[in-house]
Amino acid sequence: MPATMLSSPFFHLIYLVMKLPHIAPTADTALSQALADAINNKTKPLGSLGRLESLAAQLGLIQRSVSVHIQDPSILVFAGDHGVVAEGVSAYPQDVTWQMVENFLADGAAINVFARQNHCALHVIDAGVNHVFGPRAGLIDRKLAPGTRNFALEPAMSRAELETAFGHGMALVRDLPGNVVGFGEMGIGNTTAAAAIMHKLTGLPLSQCVGAGTGLSADGVQRKQQVIAAAVHKHAGATDPLDVLATFGGFEIAMMAAAMLKAAELRKVLLIDGFIVTSALLVAARLQPSILDYCVFAHCSNETGHRLMLDVLGARPLLDLGLRLGEGTGSALALPLLHAAANFLNQMATFASAQVSTSAA
Amino acid sequence: MPATMLSSPFFHLIYLVMKLPHIAPTADTALSQALADAINNKTKPLGSLGRLESLAAQLGLIQRSVSVHIQDPSILVFAGDHGVVAEGVSAYPQDVTWQMVENFLADGAAINVFARQNHCALHVIDAGVNHVFGPRAGLIDRKLAPGTRNFALEPAMSRAELETAFGHGMALVRDLPGNVVGFGEMGIGNTTAAAAIMHKLTGLPLSQCVGAGTGLSADGVQRKQQVIAAAVHKHAGATDPLDVLATFGGFEIAMMAAAMLKAAELRKVLLIDGFIVTSALLVAARLQPSILDYCVFAHCSNETGHRLMLDVLGARPLLDLGLRLGEGTGSALALPLLHAAANFLNQMATFASAQVSTSAA
Repeated sequence: MPATMLSSPFFHLIYLVMKLPHIAPTADTALSQALADAINNKTKPLGSLGRLESLAAQLGLIQRSVSVHIQDPSILVFAGDHGVVAEGVSAYPQDVTWQMVENFLADGAAINVFARQNHCALHVIDAGVNHVFGPRAGLIDRKLAPGTRNFALEPAMSRAELETAFGHGMALVRDLPGNVVGFGEMGIGNTTAAAAIMHKLTGLPLSQCVGAGTGLSADGVQRKQQVIAAAVHKHAGATDPLDVLATFGGFEIAMMAAAMLKAAELRKVLLIDGFIVTSALLVAARLQPSILDYCVFAHCSNETGHRLMLDVLGARPLLDLGLRLGEGTGSALALPLLHAAANFLNQMATFASAQVSTSAA
Repeated sequence: MPATMLSSPFFHLIYLVMKLPHIAPTADTALSQALADAINNKTKPLGSLGRLESLAAQLGLIQRSVSVHIQDPSILVFAGDHGVVAEGVSAYPQDVTWQMVENFLADGAAINVFARQNHCALHVIDAGVNHVFGPRAGLIDRKLAPGTRNFALEPAMSRAELETAFGHGMALVRDLPGNVVGFGEMGIGNTTAAAAIMHKLTGLPLSQCVGAGTGLSADGVQRKQQVIAAAVHKHAGATDPLDVLATFGGFEIAMMAAAMLKAAELRKVLLIDGFIVTSALLVAARLQPSILDYCVFAHCSNETGHRLMLDVLGARPLLDLGLRLGEGTGSALALPLLHAAANFLNQMATFASAQVSTSAA
C-alpha cells in the first residue's frame, strides 16, 4: 500500500466505514404477534394505552422477549466547542460551554436535576471543549482539540479527527452497563452545525433548518443562515454523510453518532433528545438505517427544524413540551414513559388472570 | 319553612350551591414576577424549559411560594355504574365495572402499575357500583345505589343523591394528606354520561361529543348518539350545571366534581385525567371558575370530544399519547412532569451561583 494512500482523506473514510458496527433490524413476525397478544390480553380496552403499547412492542423486539426490562439507564452528555462561533452565530459566548460543563460536574444543571429524579446515571464527556479542565472527577476526557475549526473557512475537522471521535464514541458505549442509553449535548454554536448537517442530508431549504438556538434575535437567525449558506457553497463537494459530518459537525456530534451506532449494535434502547442529538442520529441512520429500530424519540423540540428532521426519520416523539434546552433533558424526562411501557407489559393482569369479561363487541 | 319546600328538588339545589367550597383565584402579580425571575435566573436559555416553566409558575402560585414541593400525591379512582347501559351504549358488559374494581384491589390494573411506579397513593371509591363487594380492605365504600337510573327514561339521580355524592366527595378530599390529588374513574357507560354533560354544558353538537368509549363500532357510536339525543330532548329542562349533572351524570362523576372543588379550596394541585374526569371538572368549573387555576391537565385522550372539551376550558394538556383508558392513568403518567417542574425550580443553579455567563444578546 503506497504511503500516499494511507494519508489520503479517502483512505480514512473507507477505513471508518469498514469499522462501523453492524446493526441488525429488529423485525420478527412471530415475536411481534406474541407481543401484540400479550398487550391485547391486558385488562384494558384494545389499544387504549396508545403510544405506550407501540413502545412496549418496540422494547420487546429490541430485547427479543415478550417481557422487557429497563436496566441501569444512563445519559451521555457530549460537550464540544465550535470554531464557527467566530462568525457570531450564538446568543451566548463560547465560554458558556465549559462553564456549563462545570455546572454539570457541580450537579446544578437541568440535566442533573432530571437525571437524578429519574434514577438515571449521567456521564459528561469532554469531546473537544475550548478549556483546560485538568483531571476532574466525573469528567470523561476525550478531548480531540479545543474546539473544531471554523467551517466558514475550512472543514470543521479532519478525517483523522472524525475517526478518532468515532473510536471514542463506540468505546464509551462498549464500556457502559445497562440497556438504555440517552444522549445529550452541550456546545455553544452546535445548532449551527446541526442545521448545516440537516440541510445537507435532507435537502430541505436552510430556512427550515435554521432556528434561534439559545435565543438569537430574528436578525441573528438571518446572519446564522447566511453563514451556513456561504459555507455550504464553499464545501459543495461534501455530500456523503461522513464527509458532511467532518465538514460541518462538532466533535460532540461525531462522538454521539458513533456512540449511537455502537449502542444499537449492542441492542440497547437509544433515547434521542432534541435538535442536535437528532442531527447526529441523522448521520448514523444514513450509515446504518436499521439504527432507527432502536430509537425512542423523547420529545419534539421547539428549535426550528426539529419536527421536520423527525418527520424525515419517520419518528414520532413521546413528549411535546416546547423544550429547547438540550443537555439530554428531553431524554431524561421521557424515561418514566419507557418504564411505564415496560411495567404495564410485565405487571398488568390479563383478562383471564383477573377474571374480567372481554368485549361483547 | 313548609315541609313541601324541604322536599322539593329546587330546595335541594339551592342547599347544595350554598354548601359549595369557595375557591380563591391564584393570581398574584408580585409572586408571578418573583417566580418569573427565579425561573429566568436558572442556568438555561430563557424559556427553554417550555411547558415545565409555566407549570412551575402555576405550582408556585397555588402554593404561594417561589419554592414548591410535591408532597404525598394520591389518585382517587371513583367507580360507578350507569343505568343507561341498558340502552346498549357500551362495548363491554356492566359487570366489567365491578370486575375492574376487583382488579384495582388486586393491584392488576394499569392505574396500579403507573401509580406504584410513580410513588403515588391510590384510593378506590365505590361511588355506586352494581355489585355487593362486602367489607373489603382498600375499598372505600360510598355506594349511593347500585348504579344510576337509566337517563333514557328518567333522571340518573335525585337531587338528594347528588347532594350526598357531593358531601362524600368533599369529605374524602378533606381527609386526604398531601398537596396533589389526581382523579380517575371506572364505570361502564360513563363516556355516555360524560358526552351528554359535555353537550349540555358546552352547546357543541353531539357528533363532536360522542366517541367510541371502550371500543364501540361506528354503528355503536351512532346508536349511543341517538340514545343521548333522545334523552337530551326528554330532559330539555335540565340546563344549569347541577341539574345537568343529576340528570345525566354518574355517581362517580358527581363525587369527583365535589372532590375537585374541595381540593382546590384546600389549594391542592388537581391532576385532571381524560374525558370523563374532564366532564366532572366542566361541571365544577361552571360552579367555581377559579378551580381552573389549580388544574394540571395530564393528557389529551383519544376519546372523541376530549380535545374540544379541553379547548372549551382553555386547557393545555401535558401529554398526548393516544391514551383512552381512564382510571386516572394519564394523571399518574403526568406526575413525573410535575416533579420535574418542582425540581428544576428548587434545585437548578442560577447563572450567578454557577458563574455562568449570561446571554450576549
